[in-house]
Amino acid sequence: MNPHEGDTPAWQIKASKKRRECNDRIPKEWLIPQTLWETLPLPLEENKVNLMELDVIRRTNKYTVASLFAKPSTGEFIALEVATAYCKRAAVAGQLTLFPSTIARAKELDTMRESGQLKGPLHGLPISVKDCLHVAGTQATIGFTAYLDQLPSDENSCLIDMLLDLGAVRYVKTNVPQTMMTADSENIIFGRALNPWNTTLTAGRSSGGEGALIALRRSPLGIGTDVAGSIRIPALCCGLYGFKPSACRIPNSRQQEYGTGGLRTIYGSVGPLANDIDALEILTRAVLRANSRPAVYDLGVLDTPWREIGPTKPRLRFGFLLVDPTFPLHPPVRAALEEAAFRLGEAGHEIVPLPAEECHIPYSLEVVWKVVAQGGEPPIASRAVIERLAKELGLRFVPGFEDRTPLERLSTLNVKPGEIIKNWHTLWRKYDLDAVICPPAPNTAVERDMYGLTPYTSFLNLLDYPACVIPFRRAGKFPMPRGKKGNNGRLLEGAPCSVQVFTSRVRAEECLAISKVVDRCLHGDVTT
Amino acid sequence: MNPHEGDTPAWQIKASKKRRECNDRIPKEWLIPQTLWETLPLPLEENKVNLMELDVIRRTNKYTVASLFAKPSTGEFIALEVATAYCKRAAVAGQLTLFPSTIARAKELDTMRESGQLKGPLHGLPISVKDCLHVAGTQATIGFTAYLDQLPSDENSCLIDMLLDLGAVRYVKTNVPQTMMTADSENIIFGRALNPWNTTLTAGRSSGGEGALIALRRSPLGIGTDVAGSIRIPALCCGLYGFKPSACRIPNSRQQEYGTGGLRTIYGSVGPLANDIDALEILTRAVLRANSRPAVYDLGVLDTPWREIGPTKPRLRFGFLLVDPTFPLHPPVRAALEEAAFRLGEAGHEIVPLPAEECHIPYSLEVVWKVVAQGGEPPIASRAVIERLAKELGLRFVPGFEDRTPLERLSTLNVKPGEIIKNWHTLWRKYDLDAVICPPAPNTAVERDMYGLTPYTSFLNLLDYPACVIPFRRAGKFPMPRGKKGNNGRLLEGAPCSVQVFTSRVRAEECLAISKVVDRCLHGDVTT
Repeated sequence: MNPHEGDTPAWQIKASKKRRECNDRIPKEWLIPQTLWETLPLPLEENKVNLMELDVIRRTNKYTVASLFAKPSTGEFIALEVATAYCKRAAVAGQLTLFPSTIARAKELDTMRESGQLKGPLHGLPISVKDCLHVAGTQATIGFTAYLDQLPSDENSCLIDMLLDLGAVRYVKTNVPQTMMTADSENIIFGRALNPWNTTLTAGRSSGGEGALIALRRSPLGIGTDVAGSIRIPALCCGLYGFKPSACRIPNSRQQEYGTGGLRTIYGSVGPLANDIDALEILTRAVLRANSRPAVYDLGVLDTPWREIGPTKPRLRFGFLLVDPTFPLHPPVRAALEEAAFRLGEAGHEIVPLPAEECHIPYSLEVVWKVVAQGGEPPIASRAVIERLAKELGLRFVPGFEDRTPLERLSTLNVKPGEIIKNWHTLWRKYDLDAVICPPAPNTAVERDMYGLTPYTSFLNLLDYPACVIPFRRAGKFPMPRGKKGNNGRLLEGAPCSVQVFTSRVRAEECLAISKVVDRCLHGDVTT
Repeated sequence: MNPHEGDTPAWQIKASKKRRECNDRIPKEWLIPQTLWETLPLPLEENKVNLMELDVIRRTNKYTVASLFAKPSTGEFIALEVATAYCKRAAVAGQLTLFPSTIARAKELDTMRESGQLKGPLHGLPISVKDCLHVAGTQATIGFTAYLDQLPSDENSCLIDMLLDLGAVRYVKTNVPQTMMTADSENIIFGRALNPWNTTLTAGRSSGGEGALIALRRSPLGIGTDVAGSIRIPALCCGLYGFKPSACRIPNSRQQEYGTGGLRTIYGSVGPLANDIDALEILTRAVLRANSRPAVYDLGVLDTPWREIGPTKPRLRFGFLLVDPTFPLHPPVRAALEEAAFRLGEAGHEIVPLPAEECHIPYSLEVVWKVVAQGGEPPIASRAVIERLAKELGLRFVPGFEDRTPLERLSTLNVKPGEIIKNWHTLWRKYDLDAVICPPAPNTAVERDMYGLTPYTSFLNLLDYPACVIPFRRAGKFPMPRGKKGNNGRLLEGAPCSVQVFTSRVRAEECLAISKVVDRCLHGDVTT
């Protein structure tokens, strides 16, 4: 027992206990050797380290998800071997919770395969999941010390049930920010997820634990959630592929939550993050294909199966979103975007510039800090940035909002987005678009606790359009644009850049197919 | 000028003027001859007359919608001839507004066809539409004298735009109740839609004008709206087929409305009514097929095209909804339902009784009378029944509702239905259902202004499940069940009976395909 326990606040004692329990689940032989720690300048989050260059990371096999299903030698893989490898890798990455039952599950799947059966299209694939998804028998604290008092979840989230039936192996839960609403995956219980490319930068918004784990190749495929960019921001910060479908397609019910039910204005999506674009489609198609029928698991999703759409048109019409001057782009982000548009044009596609004044990129925010207060714990640092920016911009679109009655405010929160949805619907028809390319953010990953508003991701949650983030280029040294505070361009050198591709509502199939076209165009495999 | 105009309230003068304008549009040679009027006991709504037996109605060709597209002689039909015939028929039925441009449109379509082109899959089909849909250049008063002060609609409802592009001919708008929320299509401007089978009975809830017109074969296909049963109740009252898809499939945006935006808890559907079941599928498929793409017209609908599902299983599993004892069935309604279940069983299908205590059939209502007051006009008679029943049953499911704050009430209005949706989702899995059969109402058409609550239709709006009403049998003489007030069973003799078939959310394709199986089973063409 800690002799100072008498002076220690309850939230701190509870958080330490939880951390200890999680660490104790990691087999001793999987721990990072002391000799490696000694080579690193500690604390990592204050010293710029590129973890991607560490030998232990570089040696990692560069499996794509598809290749896990088709080992050249045998045409199959051993679930146990893969699961053990990823468990070990996840342990090395120091993540949230390893499931003791993972190895048993993998053995079962191997036995099944030996008898000539497959559980489903994801047979044996290890999948990491964000902590807000319930996994029966474990806690879903979402980083609130207050929630450490809750019993372990008694049932799985709908998607977890479904993934298990499809043959996946769940093996680790990943870190989130306190409240899940700020841009840094830091909380009192589990600490902070670091950006593997540069440990002084953020790993990104609330699926940041996924971002870090997958970038380090400690997970082949992860499940995040996205209500304002939380799949796409870790993807852009960590140099990954991330896909946010429309909210109504991949099961998103039965998550750990807080707040008042029945008054929601924007619905969150659940979707995949991975190191390759095909993996996004493998997961999405497996969940949506007619036999899987996600609506049987989750009453909240649409009962519309995956559509096989065949090859895309040889000459696609891409809207090119000229950015909102309120949110100017960092130079490397702009350069990556302009190069992407140029390459698409070279490959024979049409690029249709969309005038900024026709494209509404709104931003609204309502931060809920009640549950933080309930646990007595202090708010994390990245709260301050969000609150300042929300104050500066929050009332921009609805003058007099504060003077209205609660019902009138809620009505406005639904009606106002309706206008923006209508504007984009008109735009889509006017320019006869197949897809739009735009930045996923004005910036790359930034210094920790400095990530601001999320205009280029959150408007797509409001529209409920599917959107894919594709990594492309890395930042060089650059001066920060005039008027931007708090980030020093030179510190961001080496951070991944990305482009975002989106299509209209529900059209996940088109979004993924067109994103693959863009990806081939950007990464050398141009097939016009 | 009326000499008493000085004493006449403004709403009455405005209503008379509007009626006169509409009547003046009917060519003199189409008016019902005085000799026919002299054979009828007037006023019709107080004297039981079966209009279906009049010679002028019986002589009407018994076209199905499909047969309009495939005249045996030529394989095609002349849009002008058909449009003129239906205009004339609609004029005879004394409906709301004839469009002067109808004949010109039909001529255009004929010219197009002569040059070897078709406008779309509905080329030349006359379609009647409920008054709440906007038709550019005409008023959508929805029966409010207050709305007579509005300018004519400056654009079409999304669905009207779409139907015109698909080749349809709009030729008439049909009557609705004052407020569109009571069960009798009566209002101060246009009067009352009568039930053609028995003019003392109601033609049914708010698409009652459609019900009467189609039953009289004055329209081959009509468009209604349904937020608690308003497509299905005129269908059951007038002996028609009616289909309510999930709210999100057939375009339903840009309707004439009232109330506060952004606070809606249940969304209305738009769907077809007709004299044959194939017509429902012809309309729905034409609108939803991939090339039509309703989401291009209407940002509110799902961008999921019609799925060709092939033949249904030979042995379907039908849930058989054993009725809620709060809403006992009239004997002929029960008899029709039980015979339908028996026949389906005989035809080789499985009938799975669903215990009443497992099936939540909720009823909630929030009546808005603001716009009535605005015009100064008196409320119509059927308001009283709804208000009394709402008072008796309205608070049944949420004790203490009145004491909550407005935001808490709205939250409850969203959360409470969520529980019922979850219950049905569980039930569907538990019994592994393909579809459910149930009554569309506890009753047939009833005496005018006596139609009560709508438990068996409105719960399917809450669930947003697609549902189809199929006419089957007619009421004989019967005694009213104990405790039922206000209806005399003997007065209902000859009223059509019906069954309702529903599937789970979004599955319009399955609902129509299975409804066709049921229809064949009930109407003699058993093909097991």
